[in-house]
Amino acid sequence: MNNKKEIEKNHLFYMNEAIKEAKKGLNEGGIPIGAVLVKDKKIIGRGHNKRFQKNSAILHAEMDCLENAGRLTNKDYKKCVLYSTLSPCPMCSGAVVLYKIPIIVIGENETFIGAEKYLKSNKIKLINLDSDECKDLMKNFIKKNKKLWFEDIGK
Amino acid sequence: MNNKKEIEKNHLFYMNEAIKEAKKGLNEGGIPIGAVLVKDKKIIGRGHNKRFQKNSAILHAEMDCLENAGRLTNKDYKKCVLYSTLSPCPMCSGAVVLYKIPIIVIGENETFIGAEKYLKSNKIKLINLDSDECKDLMKNFIKKNKKLWFEDIGK
Repeated sequence: MNNKKEIEKNHLFYMNEAIKEAKKGLNEGGIPIGAVLVKDKKIIGRGHNKRFQKNSAILHAEMDCLENAGRLTNKDYKKCVLYSTLSPCPMCSGAVVLYKIPIIVIGENETFIGAEKYLKSNKIKLINLDSDECKDLMKNFIKKNKKLWFEDIGK
Repeated sequence: MNNKKEIEKNHLFYMNEAIKEAKKGLNEGGIPIGAVLVKDKKIIGRGHNKRFQKNSAILHAEMDCLENAGRLTNKDYKKCVLYSTLSPCPMCSGAVVLYKIPIIVIGENETFIGAEKYLKSNKIKLINLDSDECKDLMKNFIKKNKKLWFEDIGK
């Protein structure tokens, strides 16, 4: 396997872990968005959106994941890749900018386009895997939970 | 009292509440940054930085405050003013952009300049009260806790 294929395979592996988190959230009645934080090929944090479950205004998947990864130094974050099933909103993008996480891999940005320009202007690499599974999870959820979804993205 | 003076007086009143939060954090051994969320002249949320107290990577003062204010709709946030003793970092600024809080009043930006350009480019009004009390709180804290402070701002 060449290097490019190897990287692609890794991205799909970790995105699948983020999808598992999204499904966990769905089973709890929550918004199906999941995230994992990877450092040196190891998952060091995982999380999912907990607006519904914890009545939280800040626990988006990426925030929950960063919180669960614990307090890290700049040196740690520099070695990290954040995986999220959905394009990150301004808050979550801001967290990535704050901690200078160099790469974010997203499942899709058809359901919602987050602060991708802001990430790029801060030299953070964004890779979109354009996953049908991620899109379907959100499409089916939003159909039945429009109000909760709009609240989550400040609409 | 004319209208301008009335507004100024209100800002100082709420900033003082944010400073109370910052001091609460200091007494707990934490980073002295506080915030309050005001809607229709009423404080509906208050919080302070809890990196140290809760070993948290995401509970900056503004985030803690938004979380404590609870789940709100876009209609609510539109009527809010966020007060923070310090210029908001990219994560906290991102939260303000996500929820479209129209005004943020800060205590100072000498200790740290957050994502003020990002806020302004999203048409969020930023008012800096340039408070010596806020500056002193941070100056004295950072002198003795450089490592914790650098971690908090991703340095």
